[in-house]
Amino acid sequence: MEESRVSYQQLYKFTETVFKKIGCSNEHTQQATTVLISADLRGIDSHGVARLSGYLRLHEAGRVNATPDIKLVHETPSTATVDGDKGLGLVVAPRAMAVAIEKAKQVGSGWVSVKNSNHYGIAAAHAMLALEHDMIGISMTNASALVAPTFSIERMLGTNPICVAIPAGNQPSFVADLATTTAANGKLEILQRKKQEAPVGWIQDKEGNASIDAHALKSGGALLPLGSDREHGSHKGYALGAVVDIFSAVLSGANYGPWVPPFPAYVPMPENMPGEGIGHFFGAMRIDGFRPADEFKKHMDQWIERFRSAKPINGEQKVLIPGDPEREAEAERLANGIPLHEAVVKDLKEIALKYDIPFFF
Amino acid sequence: MEESRVSYQQLYKFTETVFKKIGCSNEHTQQATTVLISADLRGIDSHGVARLSGYLRLHEAGRVNATPDIKLVHETPSTATVDGDKGLGLVVAPRAMAVAIEKAKQVGSGWVSVKNSNHYGIAAAHAMLALEHDMIGISMTNASALVAPTFSIERMLGTNPICVAIPAGNQPSFVADLATTTAANGKLEILQRKKQEAPVGWIQDKEGNASIDAHALKSGGALLPLGSDREHGSHKGYALGAVVDIFSAVLSGANYGPWVPPFPAYVPMPENMPGEGIGHFFGAMRIDGFRPADEFKKHMDQWIERFRSAKPINGEQKVLIPGDPEREAEAERLANGIPLHEAVVKDLKEIALKYDIPFFF
Repeated sequence: MEESRVSYQQLYKFTETVFKKIGCSNEHTQQATTVLISADLRGIDSHGVARLSGYLRLHEAGRVNATPDIKLVHETPSTATVDGDKGLGLVVAPRAMAVAIEKAKQVGSGWVSVKNSNHYGIAAAHAMLALEHDMIGISMTNASALVAPTFSIERMLGTNPICVAIPAGNQPSFVADLATTTAANGKLEILQRKKQEAPVGWIQDKEGNASIDAHALKSGGALLPLGSDREHGSHKGYALGAVVDIFSAVLSGANYGPWVPPFPAYVPMPENMPGEGIGHFFGAMRIDGFRPADEFKKHMDQWIERFRSAKPINGEQKVLIPGDPEREAEAERLANGIPLHEAVVKDLKEIALKYDIPFFF
Repeated sequence: MEESRVSYQQLYKFTETVFKKIGCSNEHTQQATTVLISADLRGIDSHGVARLSGYLRLHEAGRVNATPDIKLVHETPSTATVDGDKGLGLVVAPRAMAVAIEKAKQVGSGWVSVKNSNHYGIAAAHAMLALEHDMIGISMTNASALVAPTFSIERMLGTNPICVAIPAGNQPSFVADLATTTAANGKLEILQRKKQEAPVGWIQDKEGNASIDAHALKSGGALLPLGSDREHGSHKGYALGAVVDIFSAVLSGANYGPWVPPFPAYVPMPENMPGEGIGHFFGAMRIDGFRPADEFKKHMDQWIERFRSAKPINGEQKVLIPGDPEREAEAERLANGIPLHEAVVKDLKEIALKYDIPFFF
């Protein structure tokens, strides 16, 4: 696996040019680029520029609208539903999160469900927008079905992530961003490339038996909910993924369960779709809606310090605070550049050629 | 294991008499009894009258106030902090949930963090209060530390449950109520009584090795977060339990992490406690804060019907909707009485003797 390193600035400039080329406004271009590349920066390589060609194919197929008229279609002082007008989720999501933050400024909290959107990058990119306002940020999205509920062989849910971002004082923020599955699909793809087997508990085959074949999904298998099997709480992972699906799509009017449109443009759309596009859900809560922000931050610092100093298992690494690995990746990659897999570089070169964009790395 | 069956009415009458005897007001007595016994009714035997003697010992030790002055100490239109004044969580929680529901009526959603409380029974009892108002209800609580974060040997978090209750139309409501651990402590207690081993992935010993000894907790071990180990996503279960802890206690000013007061009155309190009592967090969101309630319910019915009919694994049972098992237990127990383990009956008899209450079952 050859890798080359590209600076954040170079990757930003390239991606920006691509989004402009398909007709995104300046504002949308900045948003989409920032969100997409935040994944590469934070070490979530599966959700960054590796997906750029996928977004472009959705645009070519008419499923992504580069000039969406994103609208608030229903609201109360603390809640709202947003229609993404088939826009890039990378653009619809920050707009919806801005609505949540504005409502929180007014009445303490804001909650926004979104329909008619597309893939929104990493959940953390949106939840973290709340931090600078001394708010807790929440972000979730549904996705096309890859996960079988407990007792089922059928793929019914996406990897449906949840992110909760919580500000601290002197300590860095707490940022938990997790797919509601045992393992993310991106981890399976790494095993596939390395021709390695998957641990028991990540996937099942098409009959519902535990499988270690990293390609089991391609032959009709499914990812398993967080918990892996009934004995280890997979019904809890299934329930969490279901909550994400319902908040994101049944509340807003997007598609849910097995009807969520697939990310790859070549996969046919499900039949009899009950909603519009994919769905997201966002929340923002003002810290000082509960107690003075400086008090909260002092205790949040103590929480983080105490957990960071929890006694480690002999020979194991230190206890981590959610968000630590991504923050460390960001610092390292800002300093040394972002490593891109050769397949991704090839992909970006093809984009450059197709869209007549200078390829400069 | 001998069991006897007692009618809901009999168990209600007995428990009611006990709460009155310790000085609870009529209103608090009804609330505490209803919440406590909803656990027995729904089949969560570990959280019902089996804990009654534990609550009484906390009262005797001066840690539970039978006549609390529960106060709203901080608020915005959609958020609030409640001080439980050391009351029974069984009483503080429905009051805080009522605040959340009232705020949701006014501005679309309500979010309430609670300090200075005690154990609140099952999370579902509170979240489900939102359902009759066509609202989504959310309930979570922290608890004394039994769970080791990923990479640690130290118990830092409680089993910290999350409940989300979502109304439907013709279908029964969706009610997901889950501890953020692989297995609830109650399940371990059952194995201990049966002198059976625990499955790998539920617990670790005091050195942090996977253990199948159902008594490993008593010899310095710990429960494992949902996901069991790092390879199967235990860092996600740890992150979810952490979010519950922060929302319940760092937001409100309750104790968090290893400082949460223990339920057994004989266990000494932690030193240098940073807050007051234990903490809860509640939410209520009006469905029609997002879309018309009848539209939502129609789609929620379709969601439930589609998941219920997902193809089962050959030879396995049908796919369940969260809340199905508890609802079935409730119907069966209302009809046939609530089964009580002989140890629980013995416990209740001792309470009757001690508090001079007629024992009639």
